[in-house]
Amino acid sequence: MPESLECGIPYTLIFPDIEIKGKKALIQLPDGLKQFSLTIANCIREKYGVEPIIHMESIYGACDLQYNQIFSILNPDIIIHIGHSEYPNYIASPLSLPENIRKRIVFVKALSKIDIDETLVLRALEILNSYNVKNISVALTAQHTHLYNKIFNIVSNKKYNIIESNGLAPYYEPGQIIGCDFRPVLNKKIDGYIFLGGGEFHPLGLYLATLKPIAQIDLYSNTVRDFTPIGAKYYKKRLFTISKAMEANHWGVIIGLKTGQYRPFIINMIIKMLSKKQYVLLSSENINEINLRSIDNDWYDAFIITGCPRIPIDDLIDYEKPVLTPGEAYMALAGKIDNYMFPW
Amino acid sequence: MPESLECGIPYTLIFPDIEIKGKKALIQLPDGLKQFSLTIANCIREKYGVEPIIHMESIYGACDLQYNQIFSILNPDIIIHIGHSEYPNYIASPLSLPENIRKRIVFVKALSKIDIDETLVLRALEILNSYNVKNISVALTAQHTHLYNKIFNIVSNKKYNIIESNGLAPYYEPGQIIGCDFRPVLNKKIDGYIFLGGGEFHPLGLYLATLKPIAQIDLYSNTVRDFTPIGAKYYKKRLFTISKAMEANHWGVIIGLKTGQYRPFIINMIIKMLSKKQYVLLSSENINEINLRSIDNDWYDAFIITGCPRIPIDDLIDYEKPVLTPGEAYMALAGKIDNYMFPW
Repeated sequence: MPESLECGIPYTLIFPDIEIKGKKALIQLPDGLKQFSLTIANCIREKYGVEPIIHMESIYGACDLQYNQIFSILNPDIIIHIGHSEYPNYIASPLSLPENIRKRIVFVKALSKIDIDETLVLRALEILNSYNVKNISVALTAQHTHLYNKIFNIVSNKKYNIIESNGLAPYYEPGQIIGCDFRPVLNKKIDGYIFLGGGEFHPLGLYLATLKPIAQIDLYSNTVRDFTPIGAKYYKKRLFTISKAMEANHWGVIIGLKTGQYRPFIINMIIKMLSKKQYVLLSSENINEINLRSIDNDWYDAFIITGCPRIPIDDLIDYEKPVLTPGEAYMALAGKIDNYMFPW
Repeated sequence: MPESLECGIPYTLIFPDIEIKGKKALIQLPDGLKQFSLTIANCIREKYGVEPIIHMESIYGACDLQYNQIFSILNPDIIIHIGHSEYPNYIASPLSLPENIRKRIVFVKALSKIDIDETLVLRALEILNSYNVKNISVALTAQHTHLYNKIFNIVSNKKYNIIESNGLAPYYEPGQIIGCDFRPVLNKKIDGYIFLGGGEFHPLGLYLATLKPIAQIDLYSNTVRDFTPIGAKYYKKRLFTISKAMEANHWGVIIGLKTGQYRPFIINMIIKMLSKKQYVLLSSENINEINLRSIDNDWYDAFIITGCPRIPIDDLIDYEKPVLTPGEAYMALAGKIDNYMFPW
């Protein structure tokens, strides 16, 4: 039976039914939860008697557990990974965890204690109404998934068609999306989304994956907004970047070395697509403006990041040369600006 | 026989006598050489027929080859590492490369083509003269080591005592220092240094390791300067930071996870020294202000970085709480401000 742990923070931690007593445990947290890292580490130590080591590095998801280095160097008994979901095989990638690694990683849910008020949902429905949305789906980030049913019921009572969505894997909750996987809420019948979660990261991904109206409810700021125009602005920027890349002859193909972001099938496909162009292979575990700029020179016209599809969108959108996801590169190389492909 | 390769850049590359023909090779470069990465990759491809992949990530030395991730994910035949030296076992650390890894790493020297003019050496001697230095040693960074004999001869002819220095290992050239190892030029008889190299990084390390006068010759800017007051300023700042840390009760002990920076002996010693204090274990492969700040809170009074001893000095010197090297932490916990210990 999963066990819930209260640590005096605004999240309830849900531990899976795995024996962790007395173990040497490295604790990983998303950046947003690191402010509670010491409290959580002490709480886990008291409850389970583990010797905790708090991992300081940013971890962007289950694709980025950094376990090669952690197990080969520090060799803790287990990694307790809080706040991100494990995730299923993604397109043509060996992303599922090897069994010997999987059994040493404990995925702990962190559920926000902030409840949702019906009025927020009604305001979200008003926004979707302005787009004549009839068939609605509810998308949420990991920390709010326990509110799915409540929102579902409110929306159903208001006589909207609500398209139910189920996770693709046992560890995906209904309606749950992550930054690079929106399949749980992809359905041609859906013509608009209520999205529950803060920030721009998740609703932007949802918009680029669907190009449908999104009403965002942010429980941290207790606000509701129409995310559609924000998403549309990014979408236009991406199309502009893709059209610029159509003229590129010299390409840098960046191989992402994070464990869950290495996608040889995608790399090989890109290389085939580039048969009439010139390209150079580049690699990096962390891909950012600094290390891209460190190797960039006049020769390169454009770059493709074959690792995380969020980096071109979120981190390198303002780079002075096109930096594309594989799907966007496919569009640029095929010379087609319609049928935007995200994520890939 | 080592083989030299000219690629039309201001460095001569010296390849060791290792067969690399036709191999899939990941090419690593220090940040300063990355501007030539494409030229070097093409040159190596033409000469040796290797399929090159250019590594974009910053690599700070042989302690930071990132080979766990590179071999387990991308699995190139070899890593061609240009510009940094392999380095010997450092204090109580398993830093030498495992044999199965060692044979897949090709260390290539990159020697600067800029020659040294005698007048620069004479100006350096004038600076040392102002400190009444009689016994001089010559320290250089890896790209200038071939100029050692020339400087040695100029100084000898001017009737100074010159203390010869030899590398500690076959791959260390005479006089060569790296950012965390100054042993090749440590000798009680020496009372001043001619240092050949650019920037502040290497001469600062040399100063903190010796507290002796240093005349710096920078061939890139064709300048000579007295580095001593710059070093002394940093030294005072370090002593102030150490004295502040003497009052610290709550410590964060940061375990560096870079392959050559993991030092369990040092970690255990630090933990013993902290027996009358409270401490929390933290870990990170990359240690910087962002990830330190992400876990920092009111509880912590001070931090110790047990990985690279340069991070507290170069990157976190202005952090608002003391961030110490293990040697500095020893001073703070022993309550002794004399006998500054660097590097450790």
